[in-house]
Amino acid sequence: MEDKAQIQEAIKVQGEVVRKLKSEKASKEQIDEEVAKLLELKARLGGGDDGKHQFVLKTPKGTRDYNPKQMAIRERVFNTITRCFKRHGAETIDTPVFELKETLTGKYGEDSKLIYDLKDQGGELLSLRYDLTVPFARYLAMNKITNIKRYHIAKVYRRDNPAMTRGRYREFYQCDFDIAGQYDAMIPDAECLKIVHEILSELELGDFRIKVNDRRILDGMFAVCGVPDDKFRTICSTVDKLDKLPWQEVRKEMVDEKGLSEEAADQIGEYVSLHGGMDLAERLLQDPRMSQSKQACAGLSDIKLLFSYLQLFQVTDKVVFDLSLARGLDYYTGVIYEAVLTQAGVAPVALASNDAQNGSEESVSVGSVAGGGRYDGLVGMFDPKNRKVPCVGVSIGIERIFSIMEQRAEAAAEKVRTTEVQVLVASAQKNLLEERLRLVTELWNAGIKAEVMYKKNPKLLSQLQLCEEMGIPLVAILGEQELKDGVVKLRVVVSREEVDVPRSDLITEIKRRTSDV
Amino acid sequence: MEDKAQIQEAIKVQGEVVRKLKSEKASKEQIDEEVAKLLELKARLGGGDDGKHQFVLKTPKGTRDYNPKQMAIRERVFNTITRCFKRHGAETIDTPVFELKETLTGKYGEDSKLIYDLKDQGGELLSLRYDLTVPFARYLAMNKITNIKRYHIAKVYRRDNPAMTRGRYREFYQCDFDIAGQYDAMIPDAECLKIVHEILSELELGDFRIKVNDRRILDGMFAVCGVPDDKFRTICSTVDKLDKLPWQEVRKEMVDEKGLSEEAADQIGEYVSLHGGMDLAERLLQDPRMSQSKQACAGLSDIKLLFSYLQLFQVTDKVVFDLSLARGLDYYTGVIYEAVLTQAGVAPVALASNDAQNGSEESVSVGSVAGGGRYDGLVGMFDPKNRKVPCVGVSIGIERIFSIMEQRAEAAAEKVRTTEVQVLVASAQKNLLEERLRLVTELWNAGIKAEVMYKKNPKLLSQLQLCEEMGIPLVAILGEQELKDGVVKLRVVVSREEVDVPRSDLITEIKRRTSDV
Repeated sequence: MEDKAQIQEAIKVQGEVVRKLKSEKASKEQIDEEVAKLLELKARLGGGDDGKHQFVLKTPKGTRDYNPKQMAIRERVFNTITRCFKRHGAETIDTPVFELKETLTGKYGEDSKLIYDLKDQGGELLSLRYDLTVPFARYLAMNKITNIKRYHIAKVYRRDNPAMTRGRYREFYQCDFDIAGQYDAMIPDAECLKIVHEILSELELGDFRIKVNDRRILDGMFAVCGVPDDKFRTICSTVDKLDKLPWQEVRKEMVDEKGLSEEAADQIGEYVSLHGGMDLAERLLQDPRMSQSKQACAGLSDIKLLFSYLQLFQVTDKVVFDLSLARGLDYYTGVIYEAVLTQAGVAPVALASNDAQNGSEESVSVGSVAGGGRYDGLVGMFDPKNRKVPCVGVSIGIERIFSIMEQRAEAAAEKVRTTEVQVLVASAQKNLLEERLRLVTELWNAGIKAEVMYKKNPKLLSQLQLCEEMGIPLVAILGEQELKDGVVKLRVVVSREEVDVPRSDLITEIKRRTSDV
Repeated sequence: MEDKAQIQEAIKVQGEVVRKLKSEKASKEQIDEEVAKLLELKARLGGGDDGKHQFVLKTPKGTRDYNPKQMAIRERVFNTITRCFKRHGAETIDTPVFELKETLTGKYGEDSKLIYDLKDQGGELLSLRYDLTVPFARYLAMNKITNIKRYHIAKVYRRDNPAMTRGRYREFYQCDFDIAGQYDAMIPDAECLKIVHEILSELELGDFRIKVNDRRILDGMFAVCGVPDDKFRTICSTVDKLDKLPWQEVRKEMVDEKGLSEEAADQIGEYVSLHGGMDLAERLLQDPRMSQSKQACAGLSDIKLLFSYLQLFQVTDKVVFDLSLARGLDYYTGVIYEAVLTQAGVAPVALASNDAQNGSEESVSVGSVAGGGRYDGLVGMFDPKNRKVPCVGVSIGIERIFSIMEQRAEAAAEKVRTTEVQVLVASAQKNLLEERLRLVTELWNAGIKAEVMYKKNPKLLSQLQLCEEMGIPLVAILGEQELKDGVVKLRVVVSREEVDVPRSDLITEIKRRTSDV
């Protein structure tokens, strides 16, 4: 337990911090954080007369618990995604939740400030993983693996400003699928897009679009528009904001904050308004300015090839070549893509993708749910001899998908079962606890999912209510008479039908009745 | 990128730290840690002429990656455990990997020093979870839940000295099952032991024992042996070492380090050598000294009741009432238990539990694989009004189980498949990439797990080798002739049997042939 005087001192210091920030007109975010710290200190001092701690009962900022109902939905989504990854022949790996701080350094550009560090408690300097891609690259380099197709579903951590109602958290799951290896151009890249298409279709989230671009096209475009070499990455970060900000504001940031010439900005503005399909790539290959960049031409040819494979994979209906797509991360070297849902808010369950087309005029982007691209240099950054392993991958951003599924389950007043119990072992009379335990043991040993109430003499009504509440379909009822006759009364909860089943047939009968549950 | 001069300065300082520790004859552990830091700094300085970082390619101390083969084994173990939890009607929840530091304070006694803290980067003070029990109690209090049966499978973190060859890590999985709620005595407690029995039996890890004791019996024993009240917890921690140290050393710690009288220590020594079943509880209830403690009597009566339920659950063959079992954590209030494997090293796969009995004389404990107990006060610690929610639970320590399964798979030279691919779409001739992509799309769309090599013109031999290597059972071969005839040549990899299947029957045929794969 802590010393009161120490805490009081800490409160004084923290109070000063808050006052100073306010007088300096610091950001609301920053002030809120320091105020939260102050309140926590005060709470620690607080408590009753017994000197007992007064706990702040919450999860850390930007995180949440999942209750059983949410977990049931989450499991369904994970199963759909895992099934798709396995259908495409992926293996799976796992890596630690933290890495050496060094491993993450210099991989995320401006986003590095969002990395969570662990306290130096003696030993190595550690950070929580920011994504699954960098640990994957570290894994490949460390084990000298030159080709693998793997998926990895795990939590990652970003000290971002959370917007939890929109599914943005500081701790969140990523579902990554990556193909590493030296292969013929664009075949693995196309399979990644096929996978996004399959998953978003199967999850029935309403209509979606997959935007595609190429880092080489962006760089070529920057070059021919007159952006200085050393500004490519920072201008790219600004272009990346086009999904949230209108062009005028993006242009302003380029010119005012990043010091780009107005002329260059306007030329970029023309290009980033373009979107289309294979035909657009064709046209740009003929574009007098764009065609001067070898890099851009390489990217454009690959986009053409990509679209030809996407046609064979039957997914071109949702894929758009979009020059405004930039993606923030530093490590991409080729094709990049991002999937967005195009229907706002909660889509009714019945709304199939056919209907979606009609409403496309009013459709509003609810944000990105998947993204990825090619990163041919990342593994080499970890290799002492800089040996490269070309990689391409995709990450499904699953929290937003959960949010939608959750809202939908609620809107449809859907009854989500949180257990799979097939039968409750019950009794109508007193003093049958031992008999109930004996029977439930038989059922467990036969692999039946079964429960018994932890009471010596529960009322039959409360046992039946438990079944209603938890959606348990069957009740196996024991009484003096049943024990004497060597039977069990099997009751179907929904229909209230009851039938006496010989004890020796009970397991078969329960299995038969619940095989399609 | 960092400043070279800064790193050089840090190396100088760190060098001093190491020299000082060595001159002070600090523990090897401590010196090793500081040396590791020094090496890391030097590596950062190192690098080539290009000033490129020289990465330390490793996972953090005490952690590891799981490769696809290890993941396949891990998934099998998780499936067995989850199936058992679900058979007993448990729901599942999830909580964040970190908690407010406050939440963990004062829950773990002497082990608190092993908690990982996050760096203070502005905002709340956070720590990585040390177990799943405290977050569970926080979850119950926060959501005012008074009864639930839940499981939680997730990673926890302890800054312990790792012994990775024996399956002891700093990041490791726990598989927890807990029952919260006010119920009739010992029924949920007995179910927890039933679950441990089922899981360890199903995993076929060889023979095992489940030791049972009760905190109230320990406390009563301490009282009647003359241990002062304020030494109960610390003497309990010392008793907890009996599974690793001989009695003489434990006695020495009690007397020399903890200041207990020799007489009290010797009386404790008599009790902790006792083990048996329900009969031992009977006997101790008649013990002139023990029976003076009301607490001890309450514990002993409950042990009797527990054994009567364990008989109904048919698990008494493995359960021992053992007065030397103490368990380190502070929060236990009643029954405690721990399961140990009694066969040393890797058990041959065929060795069933029957055979195990014979060798019991020579059997050596390979350590605890499950543990738990009753903690009726923990939830109340989080509740502002100290409302109690009685809880009992068990945690399966799964890393050691993995280690055994892994060694066993290796010893048996077992071929572990890491993907579930049913068919490879191949061709013997050139220029058939498009046809292969078209066919694999058909298969994916029909839910078949299928792959294609990412080469324009792969050799048939290398395609067949891929199947051998990955254990893919079927190859669908396309050639000019097959395309003309509207068939696909389906080859069974093991038998080399080939058969022409009409394209329209292919999906049905693949499903038929792989339904039992």
